[in-house]
Amino acid sequence: MAENLRVAVIGAGRMGADHIQRLHTRIHGADVAAVVDIDLERANAAVAHIPGAKAYASAAEAYESGDVNAVLIATPGFLHEVALLEALERDIPILCEKPLTPDAASAWKIVEAEQKLGHQRIQVGFMRRFDEGYRELGGMVRSGDLGELLMLHCRHRNPDTPAGFTNEMLINDSVVHEFDVIRYLTGEEITSVQVRLGKASSKAPSGQHDPQHVLIETTSGVLVDVEIFVNAQFGYQVLTEAAFEDGIVTIGGDSGPYVQRAGRWGGEVTPGFEARFGAAYDVEVQAWVDAALRGGIGGPSAWDGYATAACCEAGVEAQKSGEKVAVVLNEKPELYRAGAAAEAAK
Amino acid sequence: MAENLRVAVIGAGRMGADHIQRLHTRIHGADVAAVVDIDLERANAAVAHIPGAKAYASAAEAYESGDVNAVLIATPGFLHEVALLEALERDIPILCEKPLTPDAASAWKIVEAEQKLGHQRIQVGFMRRFDEGYRELGGMVRSGDLGELLMLHCRHRNPDTPAGFTNEMLINDSVVHEFDVIRYLTGEEITSVQVRLGKASSKAPSGQHDPQHVLIETTSGVLVDVEIFVNAQFGYQVLTEAAFEDGIVTIGGDSGPYVQRAGRWGGEVTPGFEARFGAAYDVEVQAWVDAALRGGIGGPSAWDGYATAACCEAGVEAQKSGEKVAVVLNEKPELYRAGAAAEAAK
Amino acid sequence: MAENLRVAVIGAGRMGADHIQRLHTRIHGADVAAVVDIDLERANAAVAHIPGAKAYASAAEAYESGDVNAVLIATPGFLHEVALLEALERDIPILCEKPLTPDAASAWKIVEAEQKLGHQRIQVGFMRRFDEGYRELGGMVRSGDLGELLMLHCRHRNPDTPAGFTNEMLINDSVVHEFDVIRYLTGEEITSVQVRLGKASSKAPSGQHDPQHVLIETTSGVLVDVEIFVNAQFGYQVLTEAAFEDGIVTIGGDSGPYVQRAGRWGGEVTPGFEARFGAAYDVEVQAWVDAALRGGIGGPSAWDGYATAACCEAGVEAQKSGEKVAVVLNEKPELYRAGAAAEAAK
Amino acid sequence: MAENLRVAVIGAGRMGADHIQRLHTRIHGADVAAVVDIDLERANAAVAHIPGAKAYASAAEAYESGDVNAVLIATPGFLHEVALLEALERDIPILCEKPLTPDAASAWKIVEAEQKLGHQRIQVGFMRRFDEGYRELGGMVRSGDLGELLMLHCRHRNPDTPAGFTNEMLINDSVVHEFDVIRYLTGEEITSVQVRLGKASSKAPSGQHDPQHVLIETTSGVLVDVEIFVNAQFGYQVLTEAAFEDGIVTIGGDSGPYVQRAGRWGGEVTPGFEARFGAAYDVEVQAWVDAALRGGIGGPSAWDGYATAACCEAGVEAQKSGEKVAVVLNEKPELYRAGAAAEAAK
Repeated sequence: MAENLRVAVIGAGRMGADHIQRLHTRIHGADVAAVVDIDLERANAAVAHIPGAKAYASAAEAYESGDVNAVLIATPGFLHEVALLEALERDIPILCEKPLTPDAASAWKIVEAEQKLGHQRIQVGFMRRFDEGYRELGGMVRSGDLGELLMLHCRHRNPDTPAGFTNEMLINDSVVHEFDVIRYLTGEEITSVQVRLGKASSKAPSGQHDPQHVLIETTSGVLVDVEIFVNAQFGYQVLTEAAFEDGIVTIGGDSGPYVQRAGRWGGEVTPGFEARFGAAYDVEVQAWVDAALRGGIGGPSAWDGYATAACCEAGVEAQKSGEKVAVVLNEKPELYRAGAAAEAAK
Repeated sequence: MAENLRVAVIGAGRMGADHIQRLHTRIHGADVAAVVDIDLERANAAVAHIPGAKAYASAAEAYESGDVNAVLIATPGFLHEVALLEALERDIPILCEKPLTPDAASAWKIVEAEQKLGHQRIQVGFMRRFDEGYRELGGMVRSGDLGELLMLHCRHRNPDTPAGFTNEMLINDSVVHEFDVIRYLTGEEITSVQVRLGKASSKAPSGQHDPQHVLIETTSGVLVDVEIFVNAQFGYQVLTEAAFEDGIVTIGGDSGPYVQRAGRWGGEVTPGFEARFGAAYDVEVQAWVDAALRGGIGGPSAWDGYATAACCEAGVEAQKSGEKVAVVLNEKPELYRAGAAAEAAK
Repeated sequence: MAENLRVAVIGAGRMGADHIQRLHTRIHGADVAAVVDIDLERANAAVAHIPGAKAYASAAEAYESGDVNAVLIATPGFLHEVALLEALERDIPILCEKPLTPDAASAWKIVEAEQKLGHQRIQVGFMRRFDEGYRELGGMVRSGDLGELLMLHCRHRNPDTPAGFTNEMLINDSVVHEFDVIRYLTGEEITSVQVRLGKASSKAPSGQHDPQHVLIETTSGVLVDVEIFVNAQFGYQVLTEAAFEDGIVTIGGDSGPYVQRAGRWGGEVTPGFEARFGAAYDVEVQAWVDAALRGGIGGPSAWDGYATAACCEAGVEAQKSGEKVAVVLNEKPELYRAGAAAEAAK
Repeated sequence: MAENLRVAVIGAGRMGADHIQRLHTRIHGADVAAVVDIDLERANAAVAHIPGAKAYASAAEAYESGDVNAVLIATPGFLHEVALLEALERDIPILCEKPLTPDAASAWKIVEAEQKLGHQRIQVGFMRRFDEGYRELGGMVRSGDLGELLMLHCRHRNPDTPAGFTNEMLINDSVVHEFDVIRYLTGEEITSVQVRLGKASSKAPSGQHDPQHVLIETTSGVLVDVEIFVNAQFGYQVLTEAAFEDGIVTIGGDSGPYVQRAGRWGGEVTPGFEARFGAAYDVEVQAWVDAALRGGIGGPSAWDGYATAACCEAGVEAQKSGEKVAVVLNEKPELYRAGAAAEAAK
């Protein structure tokens, strides 16, 4: 029978711990072989209940153990570049949590490094592509069943933000998912970003202007607007409404048990991204494992990571200037054109 | 131009006051000419703000004033028989709040008295027939668009009940509306009633078994069940789900502004029948006024009042016996067959 | 008893015919006394079934008949100015279908003429203020229950447009309602308008760019965006989503019977504004009649008509330039400040 | 690291093939070791793409291979008894698709055989207990948050039925799931079953009376009714509405992308049980694998299989007699009381 993937998870924080649990209890064809964390105690705690998994303080040690043949990078974004280059050197399957790297220049270095390998090894963790709703909406766009897609209205609402969540993080950590989704749904690149700052919520922490209204355009002129509202109090919501020539489609609406009590009808708002996208993470990681066992990737590529990094840079600039800022990309390398894109778009 | 209807409203309690306001401020072609209440002070208060309206302690006095040419009866049901006979004697248009009378025998007397007149004068206040939802559902049944109607599942829920609301009143005051709606929707008579008493709510007052499950059959075998739950706490709801051969239709679902707040999505439950059926009452009374000005009725007839009274009697018996009880009706008089029924079903 | 309002309806086209029917069959306290249309045959047809109503080819003739004490103007907008001045001269209650006049300069003339009277006589037909949904949303804004209002996302979708519907008409005939609603909901003036033109629908007629994305700001910085899409094919929809500090509220969602058939769940989209706002028109006209009988107005004032005309001018300019265009208003006259505004906002 | 479960799947028909795919691609900790089918060609086809899996014509051969340590029984129900006894003899973990066996007498034999082992080995495939909706509703019942549960209204609708689907199968193959869910939600046994046959759909095949209305009671008097409608044409739906003392909860409502097109709003009805309960099957099988690796079961027990078999017998009798039929059970053996029940209810 087929050999399971032996995965080293780098970073045992919130996302890392979540992926460790996923790989250990729900994903077929993969096992947690190693957990790497600069805080060795945290790594030890993470492997305590996993037979056959070992804790390390560095990725190098994990690789040297000889028991690892794939890597999942879940450290903070600024540490991704080094971890990616190290893994590319070993030419093993990589699932890298978003962002690929925090800026377009460093992301481009990764794209160049991967090109030297001559095949794709990096899958970026934009999990929304694996969410049932986005998949169905993407299918509707591609089928042409409702005519051309003309506009997208997006809502990205969080109940609140952790201390130190800056204006830039609104773009880099939250809107970045919308950039990816827009590119995924339209199959086009983003050409400009503009940001409107209006009346701010008194619930936003000092130094953060919240909500913001982000205006985006794609190659063919699809108009997108994003309400990014990260101190929305009521709960978590990620919703996309698509206006086609022949109809309107909305995904990400509220669901769950329908309750009538105390004068109210309705249900419970999703509390956070784990509840909203938990199933998507499972599908994402399973797709990566399946593709990795066949020698490829099963989702967004390093190019997608690079392109969204460029959008984020334009977004942050637009926040400051109030003007429409063009998104400029390097030419797309051959490696990212045909087959891999097809795989990623599945 | 056409003379307005000069209406005497008999009974200035909750329903009467509501109808006085309706006739005075929203209904075209009718004015409140008189308010009759055994409590003359209450009648006086009701006419205080209505120019041209006078208060009386008895219907006879109102009729003798010469300023009245139509009557709306809104007293408690046990007073209807006398008021109806008195109005029939004068051969004027009558809108009688439900029930026609509290039992089949007295209702039949009214049917006989109206037959002697040779034309229909009595319209019974089953306002649901004027509710947009029931009208649309009725239209779907008659169109045959979804095939034959096979089953109806009804919910009749009140937040709570006034003191002294007995088991019998669950049938006579609440389920009576379902009897009317079933007859309206199917265009058939009801042939049997059965009542299931299961686990009772601790919120029900002593002596009242709540909720109850009422099982009903019609001539062609349409199966109906009604959850009657009058201490449901959460709010008011009247809903009907219809299973057709080719589809399912539900009317009476929750509506209104959609709010996401404090971890919940949804809206406000209708607090009571005024909010739920206020528009239907307006349409009902306007239909009566329009028909009365043309010399006819514009809604459910005395026969409908009689038939539902017979259903209520069977329902109360079924509550006590736990058995299926047949509903037996006198033969339908000619007067109620063709034209009037057509009018009422509009 | 109170004398009914004797209304002359000017214009017997689609809107006029609708109002004639409304006044004749559903509104309490008013009668159609005259129908004025330059096409006398059309006027004659309109009064044929209305006892006591007469047809005229000009408003002057109607006024001279002595049987008219109020006027409802339902002609095309470019004819409003003359009709308004003529009615103001007679100092009678006026309900003027929107727009007040087609441009800010002529609207200001009306405002000045009304000021000379010293009291308000003109109510403008922005019927959305009488729609249950907008009323409830307005109430939520004013109550402060959900904190401050921060953003509004509006959808204005028509299935298609009549021949000759130009880009300017998208603003002047459609978005004009959004301008009014934004002013009504926020209680603020609009300070700027910007228009984004992206990918156009192939269903839009030649010369019309559809859909468009309109960006609006108010005095306090509330950010609004409107998707105006007048060839949306699927049906009619007017929806507003309001982001507050403590929650999100949406009004204008789909409703009606819930049907499951042929592999689909859902219901029927409202086909047009008559179905969507029919009840609002009834409430609007009843409010006007009630207020007129008391000597005042019961809805949006001439100032509201002027202010929205100024917004429309800015909107059309913004469509052409692609830039953000400021909305500049004359100082608000005393007449429109306190009491009348309170009345209109009810 | 932990040894994976080596599963023999008995029966390579629709359900078997589905489980083979599930075990092979999505379930962690288990592999398909063997596929057993009397039709060896079908078994061969099923293992063709699974490295390490072998095909057999009998369970005995699979067991003798020494490569199997668990069994999933997915043959038609009448073959379960033999397969269960054979597996119990080998004392290995068993996941048996519902029903346990087709009648109460044979189900009781299985219960007795398992008792001789002294520990539970059999988990029955009532997958609804693993559906998110039923889990949440079950949690609400147990929490007491909405007061006591009083009534359940259930809908079980299929678009159509395969040839030869009899009246008895309506109970044994469809309502059986409702019996299980009622027992799961209430934590009580079912005490009686009654069946109403009314107007039948013309879409039902000859010899089948469809729909039927099934009335059920539990120990504490919770009243349940089930609309079982297996030729409902429009699609598939399994819905439960629960009336509590303080509120109403509905699960299983329609969901998915919200589409407005061609005059309709709404979405697509689930086409069948695979789409509706696919995720529940995954959770169910993962729960079984996890529990089996720890030496227990992770879901409904043989006792649950026996009790529902008794309900089905009463249901079929009630269909024929039209009377209320009592459900009589043997005393519950010690083995099924404490710990296992807790596990199953998780």
